[in-house]
Amino acid sequence: MKTRVDLNADAGESLGRWKLGHDSELMAHVTSVNVACGYHASDPVTMRDSVRTAVATGTAIGAHPGLPDLVGFGRRRMALRPDEAAQLVLYQTGALQATARAEGAEVVHVKPHGALYGMALTDPDITSAITEAVLRLDPDLMIFWLAGPTAELARSLGATVAREGFADLEYNDEGHIIVEPEPKAKDPDAVAQQAVDLLEGHVTSTTGKRLDVEVDTICLHGDRPNAVEIGEALVRRLDGLGVERVPAGSLLRG
Amino acid sequence: MKTRVDLNADAGESLGRWKLGHDSELMAHVTSVNVACGYHASDPVTMRDSVRTAVATGTAIGAHPGLPDLVGFGRRRMALRPDEAAQLVLYQTGALQATARAEGAEVVHVKPHGALYGMALTDPDITSAITEAVLRLDPDLMIFWLAGPTAELARSLGATVAREGFADLEYNDEGHIIVEPEPKAKDPDAVAQQAVDLLEGHVTSTTGKRLDVEVDTICLHGDRPNAVEIGEALVRRLDGLGVERVPAGSLLRG
Amino acid sequence: MKTRVDLNADAGESLGRWKLGHDSELMAHVTSVNVACGYHASDPVTMRDSVRTAVATGTAIGAHPGLPDLVGFGRRRMALRPDEAAQLVLYQTGALQATARAEGAEVVHVKPHGALYGMALTDPDITSAITEAVLRLDPDLMIFWLAGPTAELARSLGATVAREGFADLEYNDEGHIIVEPEPKAKDPDAVAQQAVDLLEGHVTSTTGKRLDVEVDTICLHGDRPNAVEIGEALVRRLDGLGVERVPAGSLLRG
Amino acid sequence: MKTRVDLNADAGESLGRWKLGHDSELMAHVTSVNVACGYHASDPVTMRDSVRTAVATGTAIGAHPGLPDLVGFGRRRMALRPDEAAQLVLYQTGALQATARAEGAEVVHVKPHGALYGMALTDPDITSAITEAVLRLDPDLMIFWLAGPTAELARSLGATVAREGFADLEYNDEGHIIVEPEPKAKDPDAVAQQAVDLLEGHVTSTTGKRLDVEVDTICLHGDRPNAVEIGEALVRRLDGLGVERVPAGSLLRG
Repeated sequence: MKTRVDLNADAGESLGRWKLGHDSELMAHVTSVNVACGYHASDPVTMRDSVRTAVATGTAIGAHPGLPDLVGFGRRRMALRPDEAAQLVLYQTGALQATARAEGAEVVHVKPHGALYGMALTDPDITSAITEAVLRLDPDLMIFWLAGPTAELARSLGATVAREGFADLEYNDEGHIIVEPEPKAKDPDAVAQQAVDLLEGHVTSTTGKRLDVEVDTICLHGDRPNAVEIGEALVRRLDGLGVERVPAGSLLRG
Repeated sequence: MKTRVDLNADAGESLGRWKLGHDSELMAHVTSVNVACGYHASDPVTMRDSVRTAVATGTAIGAHPGLPDLVGFGRRRMALRPDEAAQLVLYQTGALQATARAEGAEVVHVKPHGALYGMALTDPDITSAITEAVLRLDPDLMIFWLAGPTAELARSLGATVAREGFADLEYNDEGHIIVEPEPKAKDPDAVAQQAVDLLEGHVTSTTGKRLDVEVDTICLHGDRPNAVEIGEALVRRLDGLGVERVPAGSLLRG
Repeated sequence: MKTRVDLNADAGESLGRWKLGHDSELMAHVTSVNVACGYHASDPVTMRDSVRTAVATGTAIGAHPGLPDLVGFGRRRMALRPDEAAQLVLYQTGALQATARAEGAEVVHVKPHGALYGMALTDPDITSAITEAVLRLDPDLMIFWLAGPTAELARSLGATVAREGFADLEYNDEGHIIVEPEPKAKDPDAVAQQAVDLLEGHVTSTTGKRLDVEVDTICLHGDRPNAVEIGEALVRRLDGLGVERVPAGSLLRG
Repeated sequence: MKTRVDLNADAGESLGRWKLGHDSELMAHVTSVNVACGYHASDPVTMRDSVRTAVATGTAIGAHPGLPDLVGFGRRRMALRPDEAAQLVLYQTGALQATARAEGAEVVHVKPHGALYGMALTDPDITSAITEAVLRLDPDLMIFWLAGPTAELARSLGATVAREGFADLEYNDEGHIIVEPEPKAKDPDAVAQQAVDLLEGHVTSTTGKRLDVEVDTICLHGDRPNAVEIGEALVRRLDGLGVERVPAGSLLRG
């Protein structure tokens, strides 16, 4: 069983007047945050505030670029060419980089959001185009991809990839995560148990199939109604097992 | 009379299917381009193409951030707080920086667009907030402001400022440029003459008043119907007078 | 003292994944709702849901068109020509009309939102352009304007105008409402008292000046933290005084 | 061979500062125009201007609702639920209805645009949801669907359907049109010939297969570089054959 792991959560998913998520509470538990960049959520002022919260809590900052679809929260697939997908990742990542630098902080990873992440799982050309764009931008930027073929493809292209597992989503038999249309409350103990499974190198699909998987980072969703409670249960469990939470950069670069 | 000057033009003002401007032709003449960043014009793929054209023609690349208003092309003033204005400049500048870096290029200056530029002329708090944000992002980034009090304020804050004059716009008695609702064709010789005036240190207002002004860079608008012809006339005139065209960075940093 | 009044509230101010306001609770109290139309808040599916809630509670439906500014929630003034303002009111009103008709309902009034409403207060050309556009669309559509010169101007153009008062906003000495950057909780009794003042034909400005005002409809803001409590206090007070709540249409057309 | 047919063209596809298409020239030839409604192209002021041009040329006005994607011009498929698709058709159709009514005109048909039209061809649930929404809005509104199973399905739901053929697009063996990523110039005579084929009840697929098809309206794309020349060639050919051009409403309602 792994004794060190990164915990990541999406953050900064408000939009102007509309508030969403439990950023401050969650950032107390996780070691990396994926900050929305204005296409599926957030705006320039909200991004600044998210960076400040991350700096204040000592959490590693990542870009969370999504599809250009506020109404659909970036969860509705769009038929993009791979180079279109790559350019919108660059655009949003750069926007967050500048926001962070003006606050004295740095973006250390990129994790595509929602349907864009899902599109990459089923289309290797999109995975490649995004990964290569991030490498051209800065070869030191890490990228988070689902543990399995997507992460392996990105590694083969030379990227520093954190292989990601999901403690609060179900997996199908192909090892793909099943994204819910609307996040619901989940049993905190079940989520904590799935995290332990992932650290042990496996996860169980919805049909009961045991899948081998090796992860560097585990994702928690901040927009569940009981996200804070889940975070606390997970941290308690990991602490009880002596698992250390460290940013992905420490794991991957020693 | 000045013997060296930067010529700048806005570029990359297409949007997806809609084409606008004469980027390739103009970039043959100017030494700096201000690339639209997706808020008043352009999109991530168009930005990449604009960067590629600038790289191919050896033109210095600047960010041209605007108000979030595609329908109004960033020309309708909005009541923004200074920190809102600053954050949207950071957002768009960063988006272009990442786009450029992925193409092996760098953004060397920032020039706010349209109504955002105009709002700064009449509101020093906006000038200061934008200038300070650019300095926090990277103190080596130049910023273009209208020659006069706006440029002086930015210099007093420690920024490297290129003082800008406009060869194809009229000035009012306060030394502010008068932005047209829709760019029209202009007499190329008159534009060239106004550029010469600016190099000699003055410009004539619409009421005939002579205004003293010292400029480092002169702007040409690429979306006039006869923009290419104007560019050619201006370059012929400057060449005839032995005026050297050099990027603002060479002028300001020696 | 007036014995009959319309109570109106903004509704449908969610956006996709982001929820805002207390529509169902408020609609139990008010007689008219102003439904956001997609420019400052809402989206086509949310609009349908807002119409359904209004139909279920028997509340009269109005369009609440705003500036094209989701991030600013339509509260940041924009420099629009009067005809631009008029066309965006038509656009959004029509969008809601079609949404309502497909649900078997009808839009009976138009009330501009936020900064657009505020722009009309200080620019009679905008008031006229919007009012005339609504009249050209359908002379039977009512329009809500602030009681005072704005409402009088619209009446002089031939429109059926409900003169509006605000129970939960402060007035300056010119009789203009003072819009808060962010709605805060308010003392329910003070709001109820201001409503009673309005029914008696006056309101007190922030400097203590007594202003005469005659109102047909009183607005309550649904996005205050204690909006529901305020609504209950107001209704209790009006009921206690025997004031009947009726839709504006009944008041103005007998 | 049919002796009467409707000719339709998309129109109003400019956006603020960006101009596109040859509206005035084309409207001289066609009997119906499909006016963009602000989601994939156009804006409230442009829509008004498009309506005025249609009124001036006596062309029947239809709504041309598209996906919410200006950058992609509504040509990139999005994973929408059928009710989401239906509501955005209602939203945009209503917006144009109000714009038209304020100009003394009426919208008489609805034709979905681009990828939304394409999504309906391959997903009967989307065809049904859109058709039923239009019927709920106004059972007298015509709807344009591709001649074949899509048009038949809509007819079976009770809608007044104009069966559409395309003179300037290729057909695959399933009878679906093949949408180009970017419209190119086409041989005017070949387009005119394909229109004649359609009037004779057939069209030839890219593999040479002869497909039976019965059409009420034939579409011409206004954004081809030689769109005006194509329109003239087509009209000459139809005139030469004595085919009368009439609005779809006259054909379908006698």
